[in-house]
Amino acid sequence: MSRFLKDQSRNIGKSPGSIIHIGEKFLDQVKIEVMAYSLEQLKEASGNGMEALNEVPVLNEGVVWINIIGLHDTELLQEVGNRYNIHPLAMECIANTGIRPRLEDYGEYLMICQKMLRYAEKDLTIHAEQVSFLVFKNLLITWQEAPGDVFEPVRDRIRNNRGRIRKLSTDYLCFSLLDLMYDHYTTVLEQFGENIEELEEEVLGDPDEELLEKISGYKMELNYLRKSIRPARELAGTLSKLDSVIIHDKTRQFLKELLPNVTQAVEVADTYSNVLSDFLQVYHTSASNKMNEIMKVLTIFSAIFIPLTFLAGIYGMNFENLPEKNWYYGYYVFWGVVVLVGFLMFWFFRRRKWL
Amino acid sequence: MSRFLKDQSRNIGKSPGSIIHIGEKFLDQVKIEVMAYSLEQLKEASGNGMEALNEVPVLNEGVVWINIIGLHDTELLQEVGNRYNIHPLAMECIANTGIRPRLEDYGEYLMICQKMLRYAEKDLTIHAEQVSFLVFKNLLITWQEAPGDVFEPVRDRIRNNRGRIRKLSTDYLCFSLLDLMYDHYTTVLEQFGENIEELEEEVLGDPDEELLEKISGYKMELNYLRKSIRPARELAGTLSKLDSVIIHDKTRQFLKELLPNVTQAVEVADTYSNVLSDFLQVYHTSASNKMNEIMKVLTIFSAIFIPLTFLAGIYGMNFENLPEKNWYYGYYVFWGVVVLVGFLMFWFFRRRKWL
Amino acid sequence: MSRFLKDQSRNIGKSPGSIIHIGEKFLDQVKIEVMAYSLEQLKEASGNGMEALNEVPVLNEGVVWINIIGLHDTELLQEVGNRYNIHPLAMECIANTGIRPRLEDYGEYLMICQKMLRYAEKDLTIHAEQVSFLVFKNLLITWQEAPGDVFEPVRDRIRNNRGRIRKLSTDYLCFSLLDLMYDHYTTVLEQFGENIEELEEEVLGDPDEELLEKISGYKMELNYLRKSIRPARELAGTLSKLDSVIIHDKTRQFLKELLPNVTQAVEVADTYSNVLSDFLQVYHTSASNKMNEIMKVLTIFSAIFIPLTFLAGIYGMNFENLPEKNWYYGYYVFWGVVVLVGFLMFWFFRRRKWL
Amino acid sequence: MSRFLKDQSRNIGKSPGSIIHIGEKFLDQVKIEVMAYSLEQLKEASGNGMEALNEVPVLNEGVVWINIIGLHDTELLQEVGNRYNIHPLAMECIANTGIRPRLEDYGEYLMICQKMLRYAEKDLTIHAEQVSFLVFKNLLITWQEAPGDVFEPVRDRIRNNRGRIRKLSTDYLCFSLLDLMYDHYTTVLEQFGENIEELEEEVLGDPDEELLEKISGYKMELNYLRKSIRPARELAGTLSKLDSVIIHDKTRQFLKELLPNVTQAVEVADTYSNVLSDFLQVYHTSASNKMNEIMKVLTIFSAIFIPLTFLAGIYGMNFENLPEKNWYYGYYVFWGVVVLVGFLMFWFFRRRKWL
Amino acid sequence: MSRFLKDQSRNIGKSPGSIIHIGEKFLDQVKIEVMAYSLEQLKEASGNGMEALNEVPVLNEGVVWINIIGLHDTELLQEVGNRYNIHPLAMECIANTGIRPRLEDYGEYLMICQKMLRYAEKDLTIHAEQVSFLVFKNLLITWQEAPGDVFEPVRDRIRNNRGRIRKLSTDYLCFSLLDLMYDHYTTVLEQFGENIEELEEEVLGDPDEELLEKISGYKMELNYLRKSIRPARELAGTLSKLDSVIIHDKTRQFLKELLPNVTQAVEVADTYSNVLSDFLQVYHTSASNKMNEIMKVLTIFSAIFIPLTFLAGIYGMNFENLPEKNWYYGYYVFWGVVVLVGFLMFWFFRRRKWL
Repeated sequence: MSRFLKDQSRNIGKSPGSIIHIGEKFLDQVKIEVMAYSLEQLKEASGNGMEALNEVPVLNEGVVWINIIGLHDTELLQEVGNRYNIHPLAMECIANTGIRPRLEDYGEYLMICQKMLRYAEKDLTIHAEQVSFLVFKNLLITWQEAPGDVFEPVRDRIRNNRGRIRKLSTDYLCFSLLDLMYDHYTTVLEQFGENIEELEEEVLGDPDEELLEKISGYKMELNYLRKSIRPARELAGTLSKLDSVIIHDKTRQFLKELLPNVTQAVEVADTYSNVLSDFLQVYHTSASNKMNEIMKVLTIFSAIFIPLTFLAGIYGMNFENLPEKNWYYGYYVFWGVVVLVGFLMFWFFRRRKWL
Repeated sequence: MSRFLKDQSRNIGKSPGSIIHIGEKFLDQVKIEVMAYSLEQLKEASGNGMEALNEVPVLNEGVVWINIIGLHDTELLQEVGNRYNIHPLAMECIANTGIRPRLEDYGEYLMICQKMLRYAEKDLTIHAEQVSFLVFKNLLITWQEAPGDVFEPVRDRIRNNRGRIRKLSTDYLCFSLLDLMYDHYTTVLEQFGENIEELEEEVLGDPDEELLEKISGYKMELNYLRKSIRPARELAGTLSKLDSVIIHDKTRQFLKELLPNVTQAVEVADTYSNVLSDFLQVYHTSASNKMNEIMKVLTIFSAIFIPLTFLAGIYGMNFENLPEKNWYYGYYVFWGVVVLVGFLMFWFFRRRKWL
Repeated sequence: MSRFLKDQSRNIGKSPGSIIHIGEKFLDQVKIEVMAYSLEQLKEASGNGMEALNEVPVLNEGVVWINIIGLHDTELLQEVGNRYNIHPLAMECIANTGIRPRLEDYGEYLMICQKMLRYAEKDLTIHAEQVSFLVFKNLLITWQEAPGDVFEPVRDRIRNNRGRIRKLSTDYLCFSLLDLMYDHYTTVLEQFGENIEELEEEVLGDPDEELLEKISGYKMELNYLRKSIRPARELAGTLSKLDSVIIHDKTRQFLKELLPNVTQAVEVADTYSNVLSDFLQVYHTSASNKMNEIMKVLTIFSAIFIPLTFLAGIYGMNFENLPEKNWYYGYYVFWGVVVLVGFLMFWFFRRRKWL
Repeated sequence: MSRFLKDQSRNIGKSPGSIIHIGEKFLDQVKIEVMAYSLEQLKEASGNGMEALNEVPVLNEGVVWINIIGLHDTELLQEVGNRYNIHPLAMECIANTGIRPRLEDYGEYLMICQKMLRYAEKDLTIHAEQVSFLVFKNLLITWQEAPGDVFEPVRDRIRNNRGRIRKLSTDYLCFSLLDLMYDHYTTVLEQFGENIEELEEEVLGDPDEELLEKISGYKMELNYLRKSIRPARELAGTLSKLDSVIIHDKTRQFLKELLPNVTQAVEVADTYSNVLSDFLQVYHTSASNKMNEIMKVLTIFSAIFIPLTFLAGIYGMNFENLPEKNWYYGYYVFWGVVVLVGFLMFWFFRRRKWL
Repeated sequence: MSRFLKDQSRNIGKSPGSIIHIGEKFLDQVKIEVMAYSLEQLKEASGNGMEALNEVPVLNEGVVWINIIGLHDTELLQEVGNRYNIHPLAMECIANTGIRPRLEDYGEYLMICQKMLRYAEKDLTIHAEQVSFLVFKNLLITWQEAPGDVFEPVRDRIRNNRGRIRKLSTDYLCFSLLDLMYDHYTTVLEQFGENIEELEEEVLGDPDEELLEKISGYKMELNYLRKSIRPARELAGTLSKLDSVIIHDKTRQFLKELLPNVTQAVEVADTYSNVLSDFLQVYHTSASNKMNEIMKVLTIFSAIFIPLTFLAGIYGMNFENLPEKNWYYGYYVFWGVVVLVGFLMFWFFRRRKWL
């Protein structure tokens, strides 16, 4: 299966706005978690499938955050879409995990589709999951593909009423979640970067086939990573300037913070990509140097012993009339010549700085 | 024949607006398919050449979609141009399959020229065909080079009155067709990408000449692909902002969806191009590594046996006075030296990490 | 002489607006061709040098096109400049064939300087010539360096009153000529591209020194070509948006056609440049592969026969006491060892996939 | 630890605006230095921790510059934040040394976060430290990570009332400090550049493994450097156009000077990066040339002596019936052949220009 | 010393606007040349140091051009600055020869700092010198580092009242000088380009170490050149659009001419840089080809003679019982085998296209 694109064939030719789940199915039943909070109150609920949806707690004021885990149940998606009067195109985007990250302003609500990245320590790969936001005035609906997310700290802050989160509206909640997602971009890059920077010494030391595999593998990962992060910069830029009733002035200053953070992530990803390219070139040059070393050894041995072997061959010939072989000191003269030739060769290679 | 440019020589020096067919002829007679539909009614007709054109069904209201297959019959093109009062330059573009994809607003109608891409599984190449649209208020004329297209799902939706297609106007029909074409860009890239990503292991494993051909071939394909897709991004961007009487407000939200989809396709194509470049470099480095391995084997054999052969050569000499040869243990001493030299060499190469 | 820049030394320090011919002299006397036409009338004249200039036919209405071939006669250039009241800077540009293509709006007239490209089949090089336009309301003056141009089709259309050329003004005539020049950019690239694409098989097949020369030569050509074409895109862009009394609304639609054509040419030139870079890299990698093949052959021969030669050397020694040489089956055992060693080596290289 | 990104994990999930120190702790107690000056007066004070903060000298008019060294004492940071009513997000940025350089306009004050670079002569690396500015109307607060900075010259100018610094406001003080920081960017690049340019000769002379390490190391450093400098260009650009009450018209001309200086630094850093890439390629090519030299030596020796050894081997054979060995001049003829073959080989290699 | 950056350490920490000379000292005493001219009159004067400054001729109308050669006398610079009321920052720029080329509009006057380039034929390097302009309404002050410049043609035109220079104001004089400087950019590139283009044949023919040095050296030069020329494009662009009282409408058309000329220079410099990169790659590939040739020779010799030497070795063995050596035709059979093996090898290498 192609890694950079999800199989969209189920979607082709469907009427735009059709809700078709594109992606893997990670759990049997869709799970729904709800937090309803105001400055004074906090209600939490969770359940599976349709029923859970009917038990969303309601408050007189404050924010309701519905977190829906699992996108395979298109009926449920349709139901949610109908209940909150969501544009079919928005629902289509949410169900399709292969789309490019995007932000759409539908007037009464904003739709944001983003990748959530986590680094899997064990297999050195990046796990990406699509998370979608529907930001209404008093309601935030988020959609994830699979259980497990990076949002726990925000939930803690809500539960313990830390920071200003219970005082502010959905736009601030949305910002808090985006901020966490972007922080994890940085974290992913950080852990990734450590692995890359560790290679530096290896590249110059003793580059082997395994190192080449690592460099090549990291480059692939980084390509994948950049594909996910880059559109986020666009999105954060749009968000910081967005003129929407959903976004309060107080939150705007916070939203502005997202852009430099994502920009830094994109720049660092680009830098690492360049670093890996440099590594590859240094590796290659280092391999050439090694070859030169090998060739020198071969040449020195050959250049010294091949002429000498020829010399020995001469006096191994069986010519009847081969005067030298009867000379009394012939053998010693031969050794003299051997030593002389050896010395000349040594001097020759010394001068060429091969020894 | 040049792959990236069609032979334009027939066109040179012709008066601008002359209808000259540039491209291949795929069928004998131009085929014309008509669908006329409103929310209540649907009439279909099809036929060959001029006559078919005269039997276009008419409805009191709704949309007429005339799909013309085959561009070689310039007389017919002229006739259509005259009947619907189309600007000669638009007709020239439609007949010339070698032009750059473009969108022109002629006031009463829009002209869109685009590449339709399909992936031919059997020969791993991409088949491109130019499709042109003339979008009037109640009439859509599309032009194809050859029979067979990617539009069948839209025809199904019209016939079965699925989705909102029968409720809306030509702009939505046009969007539906463009959407399908762009979805196929993604599909082409997807299937293409799978082939590319399969190479990754080969590149690191045992790179051979055939793999080089594959990488090189895919790069060529990708160059061709990017040349076709890139202008589509421009076009989709223009379309989403176009201020034209043809485009209704309801459709605008849909048209906006085209841009991120095409953008994703362009980005993925660029990523794959980079991936192939990386593969080429890894392949090259891997070949260097292999060479080093080969050289090591050669050098080890040479360095061990060439001096020993010289030694054997010495005692093969026929000097009368060669004391060692009369020593009783000379032969055994010789073997001792051989083993010693062999051992030293082994130690030498070990230390250099060649063994 | 530098190919990418013409020797400007004659121009240095001259007062701006001085008419100094920079370039080659292609013919002895300046040749002047005049076409004066309106919808009803057509007068043609031609002659050499100054006199011809005095015999320009005049019509009550319509367009006069003066085509001046040869730029070396600065006196004549001055005369023309004075007669039509042309800004000295414009005259300086026209006489200097080494300038960057440009478009200047002087109010009453436009000046356009462009490269006219033709592909010389025989020596695979591109011939470039500077063509300048002075576009007045009813007068077009064009300047060429040498006889022979790509404008014949337009002359035919004027003579035979084909298309709308006799009905429209100088702006349309100017467009027609530019269109022809840009069409020839595409033609040049097309023929060029065919040659490049033919190389693809060679690169993968049996790359030799000659192929390297070809790739390198084409790259040089392409650099030269891109230098000429790129500014044309800028120029066409400016022209399509130019707000000038010279340009009629009717012509604007035609002028808009120039930009996508030139853009396509620039993009294709860039693509070919990338293709050649890829070829160079594939060529290089292919050479590495070949080297590996050569080294394998050498190593296999050496690794098999060098140890065996050593073995033969041993039994060629003349030690008095060398027990094996008196063994009756010694020779046959020796052959046994030879076969065994050979077999082991074969097995060794098989396992390494060298055979 | 990743060099390009600081470990942000302590920050993740904290409420935005939480003051969390990210970075190293360089000193035990936060040190605070204060300079309060007007044209007539100058008061200086310094101390550790909280107390120092309470002893800030006050003047009726003029500027107070509080320089806080050490970011680990978050309580103290909070205290400062509260006292001067600073936005929590600004305080968060100041405490986090891993953020991207940025400039925020909070109305009453500006926040600027920047890298201060110094070149450590001894280990050829660049030391970077984050310096943050809070620019109020009459108050400048600066924050450093560690003792030691590049600001001494400004302090001297204040103490000795040199230049216009005591006549102008905080905006000019801020400019003076930024100017110094940017001057040090140039200084760092300068010293760095000297080292790089020294490599040029080595690369062409006798490239060894150590040189490769240097080139590779410098590239890493430069990547790091560019990551720090690039955002400064953006920042300087914004600053020169910033419309804020903090910035007086008189200072604007000075602020405009920052941009070309930083731009020059960025361009030079890019140029050095290209130079190093070129070095790497030249190095690699030079290694290839060397290999060719080595191979030539090997081939010449082999090609001359291997055939001769074979010849000697022939006449070392023990065939009973080997006519030549009984010829009286056989041995001399053999030598004749040896000389002839040697001469032919010499001529052969001469013609190939290997000798 | 770093080539791309001048040592700014003397400048660091000085109050902005301090006049500190950064650069070399080329002459003992500052030389001042004055030309005062109107349409009717021309006065020239010159002298050393301060006194000369007091003897500037004055005219009732027209232009005064003061050309100051030598920047090391900061007292004199200060004096000039005071006399003409020049902003300290402008004076600082003029004295610092290491700054980035720039244009500043100070209302009453413009400051332009630029590099003047000249090509030194003998050592193939480019000599750069900073030239600064202060353009007042009726006064132009220019500053050079060393005697000798490219302005002689303008002086001639003034002296001989050629062209329109004596009729127009300082803005035209300034344009004339800039035009000359930019023409010399082109000239430098031209002479540079000739050298580069000459390399093309060498690269394909017989690339040696010296050629590599040349390519590498030219790349360095070109990096340096581009660093000087690039900012000039920016500057010329700004100048052509500058809205200043200093610039008359008549001159604007001339100023517009500067931009395409500098743009052409920048583009050609970029093209040459690409050409050199291509050369380097072709060189490298060519070296690989050569290596292949060398290896083929080695392999052919080895593969033919090593097995034959083994064969000869066998019959040189001293086994008592070695039947073949007693065969009467053994020796002839041996030769038969030799010829056969040689022939087989020849056929083998032919088939592989090595011969």
